[in-house]
Amino acid sequence: MDYQAILDRLQKDFIPDTAMGNVASYIPELSKVDPLKFGIYLYAHDGSSYEFGDSQEKFSIQSISKVFTLTIAKELLGKELWKRVNVEPSGTAFNSLTELEREKGIPRNPFINAGSIVVADALLTVLDNPKKDLLKFVRKLCGSEDIHFDESVARSEKKHGYRNKALVNYMKSLGNITNDTEDILDFYFYQCSLAMTCDQLSKAFMLYANEGKHFRSQEQVIDPQSVKRINAIMQTCGFYDEAGEFSYRVGLPGKSGVGGGIVAVHPQHYSVTVWSPMLNDKGNSALGMKVLEDLTTLTGLSIF
Amino acid sequence: MDYQAILDRLQKDFIPDTAMGNVASYIPELSKVDPLKFGIYLYAHDGSSYEFGDSQEKFSIQSISKVFTLTIAKELLGKELWKRVNVEPSGTAFNSLTELEREKGIPRNPFINAGSIVVADALLTVLDNPKKDLLKFVRKLCGSEDIHFDESVARSEKKHGYRNKALVNYMKSLGNITNDTEDILDFYFYQCSLAMTCDQLSKAFMLYANEGKHFRSQEQVIDPQSVKRINAIMQTCGFYDEAGEFSYRVGLPGKSGVGGGIVAVHPQHYSVTVWSPMLNDKGNSALGMKVLEDLTTLTGLSIF
Amino acid sequence: MDYQAILDRLQKDFIPDTAMGNVASYIPELSKVDPLKFGIYLYAHDGSSYEFGDSQEKFSIQSISKVFTLTIAKELLGKELWKRVNVEPSGTAFNSLTELEREKGIPRNPFINAGSIVVADALLTVLDNPKKDLLKFVRKLCGSEDIHFDESVARSEKKHGYRNKALVNYMKSLGNITNDTEDILDFYFYQCSLAMTCDQLSKAFMLYANEGKHFRSQEQVIDPQSVKRINAIMQTCGFYDEAGEFSYRVGLPGKSGVGGGIVAVHPQHYSVTVWSPMLNDKGNSALGMKVLEDLTTLTGLSIF
Amino acid sequence: MDYQAILDRLQKDFIPDTAMGNVASYIPELSKVDPLKFGIYLYAHDGSSYEFGDSQEKFSIQSISKVFTLTIAKELLGKELWKRVNVEPSGTAFNSLTELEREKGIPRNPFINAGSIVVADALLTVLDNPKKDLLKFVRKLCGSEDIHFDESVARSEKKHGYRNKALVNYMKSLGNITNDTEDILDFYFYQCSLAMTCDQLSKAFMLYANEGKHFRSQEQVIDPQSVKRINAIMQTCGFYDEAGEFSYRVGLPGKSGVGGGIVAVHPQHYSVTVWSPMLNDKGNSALGMKVLEDLTTLTGLSIF
Repeated sequence: MDYQAILDRLQKDFIPDTAMGNVASYIPELSKVDPLKFGIYLYAHDGSSYEFGDSQEKFSIQSISKVFTLTIAKELLGKELWKRVNVEPSGTAFNSLTELEREKGIPRNPFINAGSIVVADALLTVLDNPKKDLLKFVRKLCGSEDIHFDESVARSEKKHGYRNKALVNYMKSLGNITNDTEDILDFYFYQCSLAMTCDQLSKAFMLYANEGKHFRSQEQVIDPQSVKRINAIMQTCGFYDEAGEFSYRVGLPGKSGVGGGIVAVHPQHYSVTVWSPMLNDKGNSALGMKVLEDLTTLTGLSIF
Repeated sequence: MDYQAILDRLQKDFIPDTAMGNVASYIPELSKVDPLKFGIYLYAHDGSSYEFGDSQEKFSIQSISKVFTLTIAKELLGKELWKRVNVEPSGTAFNSLTELEREKGIPRNPFINAGSIVVADALLTVLDNPKKDLLKFVRKLCGSEDIHFDESVARSEKKHGYRNKALVNYMKSLGNITNDTEDILDFYFYQCSLAMTCDQLSKAFMLYANEGKHFRSQEQVIDPQSVKRINAIMQTCGFYDEAGEFSYRVGLPGKSGVGGGIVAVHPQHYSVTVWSPMLNDKGNSALGMKVLEDLTTLTGLSIF
Repeated sequence: MDYQAILDRLQKDFIPDTAMGNVASYIPELSKVDPLKFGIYLYAHDGSSYEFGDSQEKFSIQSISKVFTLTIAKELLGKELWKRVNVEPSGTAFNSLTELEREKGIPRNPFINAGSIVVADALLTVLDNPKKDLLKFVRKLCGSEDIHFDESVARSEKKHGYRNKALVNYMKSLGNITNDTEDILDFYFYQCSLAMTCDQLSKAFMLYANEGKHFRSQEQVIDPQSVKRINAIMQTCGFYDEAGEFSYRVGLPGKSGVGGGIVAVHPQHYSVTVWSPMLNDKGNSALGMKVLEDLTTLTGLSIF
Repeated sequence: MDYQAILDRLQKDFIPDTAMGNVASYIPELSKVDPLKFGIYLYAHDGSSYEFGDSQEKFSIQSISKVFTLTIAKELLGKELWKRVNVEPSGTAFNSLTELEREKGIPRNPFINAGSIVVADALLTVLDNPKKDLLKFVRKLCGSEDIHFDESVARSEKKHGYRNKALVNYMKSLGNITNDTEDILDFYFYQCSLAMTCDQLSKAFMLYANEGKHFRSQEQVIDPQSVKRINAIMQTCGFYDEAGEFSYRVGLPGKSGVGGGIVAVHPQHYSVTVWSPMLNDKGNSALGMKVLEDLTTLTGLSIF
């Protein structure tokens, strides 16, 4: 597969334009980012890599972090986790309370906010130092120590995170939260504030394209069965209320964040990260969705 | 891949037992079926096939027919179809009116009842003889003339189909239905009444495991891009409110029907049909779900 | 109480203006009415009456008819009726399916469409000739033979009544409908098509302001306990999703219809009908709501 | 009216029995109350009073306090208040988040929890010392200094009030909350912890049965128009999801609390308080509902 030619073509075809969408504005720190940033990094199964644009610049990974925390929680808790969170796609927005009420406090999946908060709560119970452990895990996955929480983003989310505060308290009232709500949100906002580059994310996500093995050392970090299952959740639930659309157009498991990043994996083939901060009305990177659609059309590769 | 050994193992491990679930009972015709029927038929990409049990006995395919009508409608209408039905997973039961109200009469996807009724309406507009054309299409796909509507099932559904009547009238009130509501339901109930064997279904569904080509003649019936997209919809929406669970456990695109059939496809590898009429509380074949989970574990194959 | 002076004042203060709202347009027959029609008729407990404007012109009473059918059904069925319909205010629009789904096919109250359809179904079971019996009852109440169904309105509703068709079929699927759905809708659309004047309606509704006695003969038509209860339902449920607002502003039990009529009663004091066909966005007469608010302010009378 | 004979009859007919319902148990302080407590106090418009049982024992008035805070807020804020809270009955439980989501953070009425929290927020903005001012107002209304907050109840609610915490944070996320969420809940839980007797409550609520005048001094505390409107809200919204049922059976404006108290008023006639801590499944005093139904039947008096 001539990935270089394909990326050259994408770079030529897609020019970011401020009319494409709006940068996330619910906290000041995210709204300051240059809307025209645009980068892509593809790491192929054979160890080669391809990139262009702002692929080496860090951005706030936000909800992409939910895949990391789910992976750790699944390893540590196994089937116990599924008593507290389901794996069904959500029919409504990522921060909806209606669905949570209908489901009696059991979030539909671990990638809506409520579900990831439950995962965070579970990690607080089993880890001595969740923030440090998460950092260590992510740094290992992408083979780089240069990964940090963005404290100003975390603090700002904490200050404005009333919706998430509502979610955690609501689930607490229904018995699905164990730890102190403030402690959980503190960890949750920190995890979302992780700043990473397209390069780092693609390498980390090779875990899911490489049967659970580290992209470089080939160490078996998690077992293949776990990878299969996390990919299945990404496929059906990775894009909020646009999961079906992404599956339909792109046909790969993936996860987006309101920082404008999208990571997608093609098992046995590659992992790829696109970053463009302008969001569509569903909260996913507008340009990122289009680029990935063309990428899978040009490669002719799709899991389907 | 030694499919024969795997099927031998499945046959040994799974013995139907009436405690597993209940046969669909909302119409007398479906409730009469022997709950202990159990068959499987796997058609491999290399043309070999494997089967055991009641794999040559016909059963009511019910909602599996929605894949056929969607395929025809997609070919004939192209993008126009997506103005009237979305491709997002549904967060509620297959015959829910609440979601339809929230979405202003646009069904979430073509595999919930409301969505398939819209597809039926679309086919009534473009086809001169929808029933005959559907039969012709399905017969061609599986290379057998011995496929028929079960008129007693169709008539019985028509007599008891108040919920579907509610759905079509509700969408009509919101402007998303063109033809006469009785005509649409007549076609819809006929399509659901198709009686087919595991053998026939697996051969027909090779279309989706073989890049759109006929299982025997290798004729290109639909283009590969269409297959990719229909598979994506099966992956995210094929099992009502258990789509995520199926994706998580089995990891293949598939479609179930309340007659107890489930078809799943692994692109480039195989298509497989299981039939066991006892349903779990989500309306999917209880035994079928378990068998397919073990099948993908034993083959070690999954799209993820 | 100088009702004449008060009506003079209202006539002076309120001049209909086409900017006030829109005439019901979902069926052609209703949309043809002159939006500037405006009439009021007040019948006092002492037998005196007061009126101005188009108070002697007939209009389509629509949902006001639901009070008549409820009254008959309550007499004939007693407590049995409340197994099939509740008396709680509805939190959503008058023709919502969501609420009906949440409540498993038991309508919230007899004044939303679903509830009145259940009442119609109940009447079909116990009456030999429901249309004739309804007409007889209403004619008796207002002491006038000159009351008829408007067949063109009834036929037009039948032709366009997809939402009501959805409601009745949905309830049938949940076991809360006994008779043939077409027969029920036929009766329901006829009841809604009743054409009456402000004069006739006020006289008929004296039943509810006069402890169940006929306005003229003082015959006890229904017992006082029944009146108290029907008034309570009018108070809490008479104005769709604006019941609280009407109660807050006007403070009387009442019932509106999309034909632009509103009837309100002040027990032991008077019954009053206003007609102005322009509707607000909740489907109630915009001018009618305002006139009645001023009327209760000017009379200083309110049940509260 | 021979109120004494009627109360004698009620005392004879109604004997509390632990099978009637369950005492509120969501906080330990409320669960400790003796379920067999039972008292009634009726204050007639002519200044006479009637009582039996535990009518002089204090209990936690809980949601009955919402009428007091609404009264103060309405006086101080006038129409501004209605931009932030509606007056429509709620179709769902008193602490539902679904409805609040549908209505974009504007509570349906001031008597569901969300609505009363908005009222509390409004009071925090305009009052220097809301707790003290509330206490002063209530003490004045019933002419007794012996009214206090129950601090152990307030603290316990604060400790377990996750649902209310969810509500206030959710509304804050939608811009309908001004003050610090902790401060608002502190005031809200204090208001609910007010401990009063049947005697005190009936005297205080004479305000609403006496055109806004003090039961003893006849001082005009609030204007009659305000009384009419608050009574209208009690009528349509005073009993959570059982408002219609109460209106249907009792036919008076009223308000209940989970402490087992119910106050009802018949304008120009009387105010009455019943206390029995066993609740039905809607959260209203089971015995209290029945007693008040019989009371209005025996008096023959109803606003309808």
